[in-house]
Amino acid sequence: MSEKRELRAEPGADTGALRVNAVSATEVFGPDAPLALDCGVSLSPFTIAYQTYGKLNADKSNVVLICHALTLDQHVASRHPLTGKPGGWWPMMVGPGLPIDTDRYFVICQNVVGGCMGTTGPKDIDPKTGEPYGLSFPVITIGDMVRAQAMLLDRLGIKDIFCVIGGSMGGMQVLQWTAAYPGRVFSAIPIATAARHSAQNIAFHEVGRQAIMADPDWKSGAYLNDGTNPAKGLAVARMAAHITYLSEAALHRKFGRNLQNREKVTYGFDADFQIESYLRHQGMSFVDRFDANSYLYITRAMDYFDLAADYGGVLANAFQETKTRFCVVSFTSDWLFPTSDNRQIVHALNAAAANVSFVEIDTDKGHDAFLLDEPEMFATLKGFIASAAERRGLGR
Amino acid sequence: MSEKRELRAEPGADTGALRVNAVSATEVFGPDAPLALDCGVSLSPFTIAYQTYGKLNADKSNVVLICHALTLDQHVASRHPLTGKPGGWWPMMVGPGLPIDTDRYFVICQNVVGGCMGTTGPKDIDPKTGEPYGLSFPVITIGDMVRAQAMLLDRLGIKDIFCVIGGSMGGMQVLQWTAAYPGRVFSAIPIATAARHSAQNIAFHEVGRQAIMADPDWKSGAYLNDGTNPAKGLAVARMAAHITYLSEAALHRKFGRNLQNREKVTYGFDADFQIESYLRHQGMSFVDRFDANSYLYITRAMDYFDLAADYGGVLANAFQETKTRFCVVSFTSDWLFPTSDNRQIVHALNAAAANVSFVEIDTDKGHDAFLLDEPEMFATLKGFIASAAERRGLGR
Repeated sequence: MSEKRELRAEPGADTGALRVNAVSATEVFGPDAPLALDCGVSLSPFTIAYQTYGKLNADKSNVVLICHALTLDQHVASRHPLTGKPGGWWPMMVGPGLPIDTDRYFVICQNVVGGCMGTTGPKDIDPKTGEPYGLSFPVITIGDMVRAQAMLLDRLGIKDIFCVIGGSMGGMQVLQWTAAYPGRVFSAIPIATAARHSAQNIAFHEVGRQAIMADPDWKSGAYLNDGTNPAKGLAVARMAAHITYLSEAALHRKFGRNLQNREKVTYGFDADFQIESYLRHQGMSFVDRFDANSYLYITRAMDYFDLAADYGGVLANAFQETKTRFCVVSFTSDWLFPTSDNRQIVHALNAAAANVSFVEIDTDKGHDAFLLDEPEMFATLKGFIASAAERRGLGR
Repeated sequence: MSEKRELRAEPGADTGALRVNAVSATEVFGPDAPLALDCGVSLSPFTIAYQTYGKLNADKSNVVLICHALTLDQHVASRHPLTGKPGGWWPMMVGPGLPIDTDRYFVICQNVVGGCMGTTGPKDIDPKTGEPYGLSFPVITIGDMVRAQAMLLDRLGIKDIFCVIGGSMGGMQVLQWTAAYPGRVFSAIPIATAARHSAQNIAFHEVGRQAIMADPDWKSGAYLNDGTNPAKGLAVARMAAHITYLSEAALHRKFGRNLQNREKVTYGFDADFQIESYLRHQGMSFVDRFDANSYLYITRAMDYFDLAADYGGVLANAFQETKTRFCVVSFTSDWLFPTSDNRQIVHALNAAAANVSFVEIDTDKGHDAFLLDEPEMFATLKGFIASAAERRGLGR
């Protein structure tokens, strides 16, 4: 059963959302439609919360599926319900006349399984116990996330995806989509991602998880039962991760050694430096919108991602059947998912004789560049998507 | 008043230590000799704990001063009293016939002020209150560390240093020595360091400090009074820092995505991957040998380090009077103190018309390379030190 909420032009409403025809919806999958997880558990019942923008055309051929990153959600191009941030997390990418043109395409973004923005995750009630799942929630994978997304599309009667796109963990889902459903994806845009999570990236995730688990308010994952919240641990996890999303050059340019509202250091442990103040703010604001256990589960899903391992250890085998047109994008200053990781994807696609173009964008903004104002990225993707639309017969 | 303990050939004694003539000593500076700190406080009384190796020659001209890094200590070339690790932290650098040849030089390494291995720091008793200092310990700087070291050398009657050497924070002290005492240093070897701590490095330190402070057992720094220990927070801090000491390539080579004593992932939050198990071990073993408040103070000292700022904003001015011979060493895969940071030091030395050689060592071992088996580094430093000794008239 699905529930939708279309935004209307009421006083105080999000007029930007109207412009892109934003719809918030949820879909419940009951006992007749369990989600078969890679760990062997059947998750049932479960709910998927998602956003759509634009209009589905008559033959349902204009679907753009956006896959979100670790700490993002389905609110791509309209006001975030918790933070109130207008325009969503990809405001320069998705909208009328933008690379993902909501006047032409029907855009869907689903909150991933294990998330905390409406799709079933560890903070939800386990119907078997009447208590929040906590750590009894099954460990999920990128494959599970994509399997759930496919179930939603099936429910909506959407067979083919014109374009699947995402950055970081979103890019992992893009790769998984093309490998698991080679016949359903016309074009695919993995951005700043990898076909397997590296040792260094697993290490950073493990630091974040240990920071959460070290917080006594985490209560072995049962904090919701106890009315506590491991906010300090989650904030530390976010701070550590946030450094990896930026580049040394960007940090130097934005903050350098500038002091925060003072002329001299205070010889103490206050946030003397702007970078300290900024990081503390990032940590504290994150805990207001994210669930600590979801952070554990989703980081784990990324750690487990190793697409080649599912295809006999040869990444090219994952794309052997593909007819998808790929555009792989990386950023020069991204050290979390460096160009070398993205180039491995390109090499595998080449080995599978796939149709692939590859662009490395020159920027100092680090991994987060995919979320920021990168004109070269916008121009590249606008061209790639428009050209794919033409080949797909999606005229204006 | 000084107290020394020379190692004798007793059964079970550290014969390696005998070979290098290891002496453990402490020196107490009473009310007549306070340490004037940069923050304005006079620290008094205070103690310096140090190690010496080799023999001081008659004219006291063969002194090599080793400055230790953030979490290291004075136990350079002999068994560590807490961990029992034989040979110290620089076993391939310091010893008979090694680059820092204990048959030729008199080697001194002092535990830094603010440390926790015998030199006065936040875990010691404040004589004014009879309680451990905790956060009432004054914030110290790299300048303070070096000032204290100079007081010890004065007390020992040592005017000139033949060579001052150190990596990372040790390299900061080396630079500070040459700037603050231009007449006392014949040669200087800053390794894998910087003349100012970068925004990214401050950010990583801030994450570590917040992890410690988030631990309720930290008790606002007064954990020693309460008999608690913020071990979990300190372990998380160490884990985050440890990643920065390695390189992505080294992590990939050593661990990759190898599983820890299992054939499949467990779909849980145990240490499935070797890198997780390794990091957890690094965190847990660190807390047995290090004090959490010392970690706060010493990271802060590094953050505050900005040598140019003390010289009108022009780094070259710090070396205007120098007659010291410099050898600057960096490592290609060090992303914590990258070659660019080290090259800035070289440029400033060039601008000051100083005598400087610069070597970038090709290695995948990251920042920690200075502590590891790097034959090119050993060969470079052996040559530089031997050549400096010849010019200093330190014949065999």
